[in-house]
Amino acid sequence: MPYKQAVEELKVKLKGLREQYQRSSNHTPIEFVTGRVKPISSIVDKAKRKNIPLNELEDKMQDLAGVRIVTQFVEDIETVIKLIRTRTDFDIIEERDYVVEKKPSGYRSYHLVLRYPVQTIEGEKKVLVELQVRTLAMNFWATIEHSLNYKYSGEIPEDIKMRLMRAAEAAFKLDEEMSIIRDEVRDAQEIFIQKQEQGRKL
Amino acid sequence: MPYKQAVEELKVKLKGLREQYQRSSNHTPIEFVTGRVKPISSIVDKAKRKNIPLNELEDKMQDLAGVRIVTQFVEDIETVIKLIRTRTDFDIIEERDYVVEKKPSGYRSYHLVLRYPVQTIEGEKKVLVELQVRTLAMNFWATIEHSLNYKYSGEIPEDIKMRLMRAAEAAFKLDEEMSIIRDEVRDAQEIFIQKQEQGRKL
Amino acid sequence: MPYKQAVEELKVKLKGLREQYQRSSNHTPIEFVTGRVKPISSIVDKAKRKNIPLNELEDKMQDLAGVRIVTQFVEDIETVIKLIRTRTDFDIIEERDYVVEKKPSGYRSYHLVLRYPVQTIEGEKKVLVELQVRTLAMNFWATIEHSLNYKYSGEIPEDIKMRLMRAAEAAFKLDEEMSIIRDEVRDAQEIFIQKQEQGRKL
Amino acid sequence: MPYKQAVEELKVKLKGLREQYQRSSNHTPIEFVTGRVKPISSIVDKAKRKNIPLNELEDKMQDLAGVRIVTQFVEDIETVIKLIRTRTDFDIIEERDYVVEKKPSGYRSYHLVLRYPVQTIEGEKKVLVELQVRTLAMNFWATIEHSLNYKYSGEIPEDIKMRLMRAAEAAFKLDEEMSIIRDEVRDAQEIFIQKQEQGRKL
Repeated sequence: MPYKQAVEELKVKLKGLREQYQRSSNHTPIEFVTGRVKPISSIVDKAKRKNIPLNELEDKMQDLAGVRIVTQFVEDIETVIKLIRTRTDFDIIEERDYVVEKKPSGYRSYHLVLRYPVQTIEGEKKVLVELQVRTLAMNFWATIEHSLNYKYSGEIPEDIKMRLMRAAEAAFKLDEEMSIIRDEVRDAQEIFIQKQEQGRKL
Repeated sequence: MPYKQAVEELKVKLKGLREQYQRSSNHTPIEFVTGRVKPISSIVDKAKRKNIPLNELEDKMQDLAGVRIVTQFVEDIETVIKLIRTRTDFDIIEERDYVVEKKPSGYRSYHLVLRYPVQTIEGEKKVLVELQVRTLAMNFWATIEHSLNYKYSGEIPEDIKMRLMRAAEAAFKLDEEMSIIRDEVRDAQEIFIQKQEQGRKL
Repeated sequence: MPYKQAVEELKVKLKGLREQYQRSSNHTPIEFVTGRVKPISSIVDKAKRKNIPLNELEDKMQDLAGVRIVTQFVEDIETVIKLIRTRTDFDIIEERDYVVEKKPSGYRSYHLVLRYPVQTIEGEKKVLVELQVRTLAMNFWATIEHSLNYKYSGEIPEDIKMRLMRAAEAAFKLDEEMSIIRDEVRDAQEIFIQKQEQGRKL
Repeated sequence: MPYKQAVEELKVKLKGLREQYQRSSNHTPIEFVTGRVKPISSIVDKAKRKNIPLNELEDKMQDLAGVRIVTQFVEDIETVIKLIRTRTDFDIIEERDYVVEKKPSGYRSYHLVLRYPVQTIEGEKKVLVELQVRTLAMNFWATIEHSLNYKYSGEIPEDIKMRLMRAAEAAFKLDEEMSIIRDEVRDAQEIFIQKQEQGRKL
């Protein structure tokens, strides 16, 4: 299966973007990059649950291979997506914005499905890869929701669901507070640069 | 300088703990591990600021080499520290608890200073390494405080400091909400296991 | 400079080929893959030596970025090159066969120059990468010649040159002995499979 | 099993030595370092072949975990072993010199068995690790012998055995030629340094 190879290549490519930002001494919208191929057992479970025949797996299941970009600020998500859209080494075949319209559970994230060409020993093969873009706070919450979902086999009890919602709100609040600081940092920097320019003119 | 080597070895060792937890199918108190050696420029800056002569650098500056363990839950910090204290491959020469007593800025984290023996081509050399243990939310906030501190050279304006404090509170709130869920998950699991045991006895 | 990124991506891609061969349980023609970007000091030295103006560096110096595939057997070189030629993720703009026609020094290796597209934060940029394909014995000898060349600044004394030639012949002999074994192994396997087939027919 | 962890830690430690040599701008006796844990299937095969009961596996089978240091020159093997003997992070419980006394098959290599302490989540555990030290040429030959052994299940036909012996001789010859160059390089360097010193005195 060329899925592992696709994930490895995309990880190196996206981590490379992060390094480029850092060396250009600009704010990097990419805090870290992770990737994984769904383990066989999870694939079988999901196929059963959703009644997907095995021969349609590759087309129907878009998250066999997954790559994630985690950002510091909500605003960075937009920056990352715009950059992803300019690339010519894969096609974007779908986008879903769960940041603006969060899921009922409280889940927020931006999803893209990529069609990525892998060069194998039997020639080129195109595979689907799900790319998630989210802030640290969104990622934090989603990690915990994921493990609870796993423990309760997708049926989290009502009261714990409520607790999760409250945690999601706390994560959301943290993102908001961070965004406000981000704007002030930017304002402060702009004022600083303007003063410097004025200083030169005197 | 054997600092880089000490950091590389500790990273492999602590990441190994994480894998051991995962394979033992217990909750892993270690979400991820990072490490770095302070860049020369930062060392010189700090030495000037704190008036440390160059020949006393290695003894006085305990964070030339740094390793960080990030946890999901506040309670995991305690678990990690207890495990660290049982190890025989280094000495712990200092511990500071900024989780219980957070810094005025809002900073929370548990710090240990380790004396770690590195085998060099000129024999064994013991170096100091700072080990920080903190939750994802604490880490998130600290990362942003660090970059603001860097931008304002340690003198963050009063109004931005206030904003940072509010963000720290949001992060703290998130940790609290998460802790509550953690307890419920544990309770749920215990009830589950008890029922299973009762089932066997019938 | 996007050279480092090109090398990182090609390393992951070529190492991926190796894994694909291993999982397909065929003989893998790729023993290992290495890569490097020429350090700045070497670039400046070579530019001076060859009188290359700085603005023509990227076009004239084709080995700023280098990737190397090392094989067990001489015959594997051909297999690797054929596979490289089928790929669609870069263009091959030059090939030089120093395996059939070795250099006067005794150097043997197959060289390709690739034009590889890197997706940067400022859009796609195509860079030249030199790909060397050689056996373990060729690589072994070349490594030592390289370090002697470095020590004598390219002017190796006549008597040491002679010694190097003798070592090159020993490496060549080793490759030949290995090739003979390789054929026998293959023959043995074919006989084995034929017998198995005959057994089924009885 | 803490074997994988022992191998990971030793790899980082031994690769660190290589970097130290390089930064000290001396000849590094370490060309590269590899490591592996024997796959379960090979363990079971070998246990059957040698009649080792499963509960005695850890004591009787000393190569469950293996680390290898590969050198450029035969003389580097001695340097590496001396350095290994000065380390305090493991005990050496056995040494076997197949370089001076090669095996009948033609195999040459220096073997050490280390008792290495791993810090696990259940406390310290000491594991045996086999450390092999050999030249590139020895390694090259051994790799091929290993794969032939694997194909013929340990019973290589007489005529191929002969071919292997000839290849081993070719590898041995290559090592000898390299050793001669090594001495000349060293002589040349010493003469160079002596001249330099004389120049200063005039």
